[in-house]
Amino acid sequence: MTKDRRPTLETVAAAAGVSLATVSKVLNDRADVSAATRARVQRLLVQHKYVPPGRPMVGRFAGGRRLIDLVFTALDSPYSVEILRGVTSGPMDVVVSSMSDRSGSRPWSSGLASAGRSGAIIVASELTPLDQRLLDHAHIPYVLIDPAAKLPEPDVATVGATNWAGGLSAARHLLGLGHRRIAVIGGPVAMLCSRARIDGYRAALESAGVKVDPALIATGNFHHIGGYQAARGLFELPDPPTAIFAGSDEQAFGVAEAARVTGRRIPEDLSVVGFDDLPISRWVSPPLTTVRQPLAEMGRTAAEMLLTMIDGREPHGRQVELATELIVRSSTAPPPLPAMESPGHATLARGLH
Amino acid sequence: MTKDRRPTLETVAAAAGVSLATVSKVLNDRADVSAATRARVQRLLVQHKYVPPGRPMVGRFAGGRRLIDLVFTALDSPYSVEILRGVTSGPMDVVVSSMSDRSGSRPWSSGLASAGRSGAIIVASELTPLDQRLLDHAHIPYVLIDPAAKLPEPDVATVGATNWAGGLSAARHLLGLGHRRIAVIGGPVAMLCSRARIDGYRAALESAGVKVDPALIATGNFHHIGGYQAARGLFELPDPPTAIFAGSDEQAFGVAEAARVTGRRIPEDLSVVGFDDLPISRWVSPPLTTVRQPLAEMGRTAAEMLLTMIDGREPHGRQVELATELIVRSSTAPPPLPAMESPGHATLARGLH
Repeated sequence: MTKDRRPTLETVAAAAGVSLATVSKVLNDRADVSAATRARVQRLLVQHKYVPPGRPMVGRFAGGRRLIDLVFTALDSPYSVEILRGVTSGPMDVVVSSMSDRSGSRPWSSGLASAGRSGAIIVASELTPLDQRLLDHAHIPYVLIDPAAKLPEPDVATVGATNWAGGLSAARHLLGLGHRRIAVIGGPVAMLCSRARIDGYRAALESAGVKVDPALIATGNFHHIGGYQAARGLFELPDPPTAIFAGSDEQAFGVAEAARVTGRRIPEDLSVVGFDDLPISRWVSPPLTTVRQPLAEMGRTAAEMLLTMIDGREPHGRQVELATELIVRSSTAPPPLPAMESPGHATLARGLH
Repeated sequence: MTKDRRPTLETVAAAAGVSLATVSKVLNDRADVSAATRARVQRLLVQHKYVPPGRPMVGRFAGGRRLIDLVFTALDSPYSVEILRGVTSGPMDVVVSSMSDRSGSRPWSSGLASAGRSGAIIVASELTPLDQRLLDHAHIPYVLIDPAAKLPEPDVATVGATNWAGGLSAARHLLGLGHRRIAVIGGPVAMLCSRARIDGYRAALESAGVKVDPALIATGNFHHIGGYQAARGLFELPDPPTAIFAGSDEQAFGVAEAARVTGRRIPEDLSVVGFDDLPISRWVSPPLTTVRQPLAEMGRTAAEMLLTMIDGREPHGRQVELATELIVRSSTAPPPLPAMESPGHATLARGLH
């Protein structure tokens, strides 16, 4: 069934409007082809399901289900299960691995084609230029979920969430409760999603006429320890925050622990908002107010997008952001001081501590 | 390279000391072969890496890495990431799926051989007799992690943790702090691991001369809601517990939430011990005292055992239990009443509530 479906390079050359020699150059990853031509030829090779002679095809359609790779930066967070659940709910078989487990000299992407993979989904990371070249060369389509540090090229397929809008809704919720000293804890500074969340926070404060205090913008690592350390620092400020938008749920747990060990009650003394809505965020005490990222849905969307690309069709959009949603639970409340609107009173109250 | 390694059925028949017809019967899953002979022949077929003619072998050794299936009952818990991390740290490619996503009439195990799988790891579940037959028939070795409800046959490979000893250490810790009214919340009654934990709890109490009160043995589902509901019930007892061994970390979070909404402080008013040591158990406030199950290590061990079996060798042991370990954090403390040893005083104090 599959054997007769290997189109010749001539077909692809004709469709691309280039010579056979050019197609061959693209296949051999030679430098003397323009980026635009290379992209067009590669797209057509995928669309025509070109398979190099000698490449085993059986793996790609084994058991009637396609086999794809799902690669995490590290398998160190409940975040991973959510994505995984979405990706595995589709009709493809999913090989899961973690970049942190990869060792040795061979890049992750080099064995995919011979191992019969039809495509790949990469989570919260970037492809190295080498990975990208190897995937393109092997005509293995891929989708990035939450690409970390740099804006992907427009033809790279990505799935993310509306991080900016999420940051905005978190800060607006706290403003609405009466907070004015609102801190934010970002993830690693290089990560785009973190910057978008902080920018959303900033926009909410500015549009409410609240001055953004640089001392209230802290940096974490998206993990528990990052939230804990940043919160300990924020508590030491002369004018500490009454609310913290923690940037991620794990960081919110770190903030909660910092509050506990320093004798602050949540939400009576300190309001905390997370970001992600991990299943555990409903389980902690008090249950966490957070910005829901539809992680499973993001996984499902990436899988559908990839399947479309594997079938040689063009997805509806190559760069999708799914909506975030504020989920209000019990970790947020009005600020402890009776009259934050009256600076004199607030200063006095703090002075009495 | 692989083509010449297909031993003939004659070799297997000779090694098993049976006729060629018998080997053929086993291969065709006919009923008229004794269980012992069937098992011997199947073991030898695996050891000799017998592959039926026409079966593609490329998938099994594609890219130099074997491909195995890792099947979860459901992908609904941070527990899954830990197991996954262990299994994927080995030298095999791991296809992850969830039984709850499987729909349709074909059993999970039916497509494995044609999809080029070398083996399978099944988590916290059982194989149906049909699954077992299909795997055996396809000579696909498998390992069960924490098989759920029934004691596996001695030749089935399993990896678990020392649940009984874990339950014992949890209850001993609470007894050592001075608690006497210690409740336990089990998982689903049919699950072996849950029964072992409760039996360990019972043994600790009995060996300390503390009467086991059936009213203090509650049933959950290993999830948050199970812990929450069971704790709400326990709080209503005329003589409520001062400590709860929650049976799982998720149930411990449910207990913590039940304590919070009823105004009980942990550990001042109520001590709580979990079971699992999920990463999040370090992050909740207060950090959870729990019995550590080496989940990642269990995944790693299952993968190693499976690899040994795939290579046709016999693992050192087919039924392995890895040690659990009590991790003392901040959710446990001496009981609130000053003199639990003096029943008169304790009853009086409770009477005053």
